[in-house]
Amino acid sequence: MSVTGLPFDDIRDLVKKLPGPDRKAIHDKRHREAELTKPAGSLGRLEEISEWLAAWTGRPPAVNRPMVVVFAGNHGVAQKGVSAFPPEVTAQMAANFAAGGAAINQICATFDLGLKVFDLALEVPTADFTEGPAMDERTCVATMAYGMEALAGEPDLLIIGEMGIGNTTVAAAMSAALFGGDPKTWVGRGTGNDAEAMARKLEAVEKGLALHGPHISDPLEVLRRLGGRELAAMAGAILAARTQRVPVIVDGYVATAAAAVLWKMDPGALDHCLFGHVSAEPGHIRALEAMGKIPLLALGMRLGEGTGAALAAAIVKAAARCHSGMATFEQAGVAEKAE
Amino acid sequence: MSVTGLPFDDIRDLVKKLPGPDRKAIHDKRHREAELTKPAGSLGRLEEISEWLAAWTGRPPAVNRPMVVVFAGNHGVAQKGVSAFPPEVTAQMAANFAAGGAAINQICATFDLGLKVFDLALEVPTADFTEGPAMDERTCVATMAYGMEALAGEPDLLIIGEMGIGNTTVAAAMSAALFGGDPKTWVGRGTGNDAEAMARKLEAVEKGLALHGPHISDPLEVLRRLGGRELAAMAGAILAARTQRVPVIVDGYVATAAAAVLWKMDPGALDHCLFGHVSAEPGHIRALEAMGKIPLLALGMRLGEGTGAALAAAIVKAAARCHSGMATFEQAGVAEKAE
Repeated sequence: MSVTGLPFDDIRDLVKKLPGPDRKAIHDKRHREAELTKPAGSLGRLEEISEWLAAWTGRPPAVNRPMVVVFAGNHGVAQKGVSAFPPEVTAQMAANFAAGGAAINQICATFDLGLKVFDLALEVPTADFTEGPAMDERTCVATMAYGMEALAGEPDLLIIGEMGIGNTTVAAAMSAALFGGDPKTWVGRGTGNDAEAMARKLEAVEKGLALHGPHISDPLEVLRRLGGRELAAMAGAILAARTQRVPVIVDGYVATAAAAVLWKMDPGALDHCLFGHVSAEPGHIRALEAMGKIPLLALGMRLGEGTGAALAAAIVKAAARCHSGMATFEQAGVAEKAE
Repeated sequence: MSVTGLPFDDIRDLVKKLPGPDRKAIHDKRHREAELTKPAGSLGRLEEISEWLAAWTGRPPAVNRPMVVVFAGNHGVAQKGVSAFPPEVTAQMAANFAAGGAAINQICATFDLGLKVFDLALEVPTADFTEGPAMDERTCVATMAYGMEALAGEPDLLIIGEMGIGNTTVAAAMSAALFGGDPKTWVGRGTGNDAEAMARKLEAVEKGLALHGPHISDPLEVLRRLGGRELAAMAGAILAARTQRVPVIVDGYVATAAAAVLWKMDPGALDHCLFGHVSAEPGHIRALEAMGKIPLLALGMRLGEGTGAALAAAIVKAAARCHSGMATFEQAGVAEKAE
């Protein structure tokens, strides 16, 4: 797939042809699961996770090349004073990722996860969505295609996160457009807004919804008009992962808003995705509930960078290893049941 | 401390002299936390965890020698048909731990956690508590003292789990005695009981409570009369960890019942403990709520072996590494706030 000139119709075609789960791999996984030295079902969600890995890789559960990808973008709407931090922090934090000083670096080091950071034209913020569409169609699709490059290193588990000052404002506007409801319920404190910044943030979201309202029945138009580069790239990466049979762990509120574009196009489009955690940002649990997704962790985090999803990746690694490494009742000489 | 002849009074003296949190270490931790390159509070529970590590080790947050200890014991009450598995499975699973074939082995390997398994006289089950006290005072205290040996390798984080066919029956009886309420609400399916085994399990718990009722105002008597070797050893290990400044992660329903003995003696006695997860066994959340403890993970697990606590240890490792490894705003050249 080329990074230039891919129109929305090609994205729609990809979504129409999503591969399903691998029935044979699920069957084989369940067969082995029943033989492992533990009471049936006693590993709870870990057993669901190993089945999910089998279903979407088509192989026995394993995590050998987990990769965290962090997409960074800047937003015209940040000029409206919607964040507690100035826009230049996006580039400063991208440099911090490169130098190994951010939270996501520490979590990747703890769990031996690969990390790639994609700076998305940080010096050219998207347009302010309160004044017009954030992107033209060509930019939006090219950025989605660029996001598909996240699969380049052939990871077998993709962990998706972001960095972008102002992007919880973007996520709020997109979530309101995709899921409906009072815009106020989608607006949270982000990086730590005071009351005035919160008022500006809500005002921006309402203005954006009013301006783009007639076009928000098309999820890709929601992404183009109210979204941003890192959101387009995340949506592209999630889509490419499905076609390339790579399970995905989605991070917090902003990453979920990007994923929701695909869900709105096809409610099955995220079946290969695990939602790593529920953020402290109040809109996140509402978005997850609207899509019927149950997050793995609830740790009150609201940092982004893929941090919540990377912690979830640790649990996923353990789930895979339990399935592949445990002895069977027969191997261990353990009695299966009384009598 | 000798492993023989320590009477309950010595345990009571230890509980009276519990060391408190290290105020200086907490102060230093908070000072650094405020300088790290992230919005204040954005790591949520990870920030609480790193403070908890500082408070109870008296040092900057770090996890360098995490150790899982699994205590295995057998129970006279298992002869009453309260479990889906026969009693010999305790020893078979202990052998499986030694051979590296159990779930806890895989999780320890995934997260580089040490693992020690303590077999507690598996060939001599404790007495059936429906007919008399499970242990005499000497055995109970000697086993607590033996549990204190878990600290021998000088771990800096202790993860506590167990194995013992019949021990959710023991935990149910102890929880009912320590926290009160309808015995039925403390009895769950354990390893997977059918309706008949559930009826036998409830009957055993009720019989035990009726028999030992007059003595259950003393938490140590609850442990001695209704408990078992692995529960006494876990209580001893938790107590020794406090005096030796080692934070503890407690596993599921059975480990929590052991910890609750100390909590009942002094509600502050578990302040150095983190409850790693909430088990699918329905009594567990009730016990945690009775003690005001909020579990870290909720993964629907009910295996024991320390598996839930070992997964929580991964999160604790990441929390410590985020605190110690992240760059400060000054180091990274990141702006702290807008204006």
